[in-house]
Amino acid sequence: MAGTRLKPEREAEMYAAVLDLLRELGYDALTMDAVAARTRSSKATLYRQWGSKPELVVRALRHNKPAAFQEIDTGSLRGDFHAMAELSDDCKMEEDAALMRSLLHVVHENPDLHRALRELLVEPEMTGLGILLRRAVDRGEVAADHPAFPFVTHMLVGAFVARQLIEDKAVDRAFLSDYLDAVVLPALGV
Amino acid sequence: MAGTRLKPEREAEMYAAVLDLLRELGYDALTMDAVAARTRSSKATLYRQWGSKPELVVRALRHNKPAAFQEIDTGSLRGDFHAMAELSDDCKMEEDAALMRSLLHVVHENPDLHRALRELLVEPEMTGLGILLRRAVDRGEVAADHPAFPFVTHMLVGAFVARQLIEDKAVDRAFLSDYLDAVVLPALGV
Repeated sequence: MAGTRLKPEREAEMYAAVLDLLRELGYDALTMDAVAARTRSSKATLYRQWGSKPELVVRALRHNKPAAFQEIDTGSLRGDFHAMAELSDDCKMEEDAALMRSLLHVVHENPDLHRALRELLVEPEMTGLGILLRRAVDRGEVAADHPAFPFVTHMLVGAFVARQLIEDKAVDRAFLSDYLDAVVLPALGV
Repeated sequence: MAGTRLKPEREAEMYAAVLDLLRELGYDALTMDAVAARTRSSKATLYRQWGSKPELVVRALRHNKPAAFQEIDTGSLRGDFHAMAELSDDCKMEEDAALMRSLLHVVHENPDLHRALRELLVEPEMTGLGILLRRAVDRGEVAADHPAFPFVTHMLVGAFVARQLIEDKAVDRAFLSDYLDAVVLPALGV
């Protein structure tokens, strides 16, 4: 990003305000004007720092994430996966799920939001997961050509989406932990 | 349903027309008037036979499904799963996925559609899958208390949703077959 950077505390404050507005108004009604008013900043600053509304919203979501997967390094794949599940508490997982659901509802009418979600949120998470998995291969825990390897994301996405779809509940730590032990690790032969 | 029943051929013809209209217009613009005009029937007939637009649309989708899972009975779980994957051809899977995507986009604004999808489409499929799995338990292929047992639907949903999300592609037979062999069957220890 060009220009002067905001202080990290100010940036965090602005991201929190954006997520509050997203919960209150929804994506469509969240305007740059509303963000400027709530954060007592100018629209010029918002556009200079973030370029566009979808980028601002997705960066706020990303800032809200507890940590990148690749930062986890417990020494075993089982440990890493369970640490992943422990990154959030249940309230935050529920909140995140509600935010993501509301965005997924409008994504088809907002290709720029779709692109920002993919580039700034989905792809970095997949990269992080890839790094975590590659370490398991390097340690000899899983063969690099293990047939379940290309499907780890599919299994994880299934946990989140199907729980919502079937049980009408967001994933919580206990569920994720059971799923990892019952599905993901056995499929990988770990 | 009360009253005189339509002949099966006529019913099939009407369901095909409803799906055509759904593809052409989308769910919101698909009215009972449009269905009546396209099928040369009266709105009174439509309401008498189907009660409401969401029920008509979901019954059309269900009619379009190749067969219920519980009708598959090859004698092994691996055989049953792969027969499930062979029920559709790739073109039909692609078409179905497009229809389901378009409905999932409007489901949050249409609670009656959501309910009809759940009751008439999702729950019967889960029941069918449950019957197929129980047969595997009866044959001694999987323990009734196998930890992956409650998650078979999650794994399958993951295949469909994540492929779309990550690869921007609908699931096809080859993908589903690989996924069954690499993920679902190994997680179940089969």
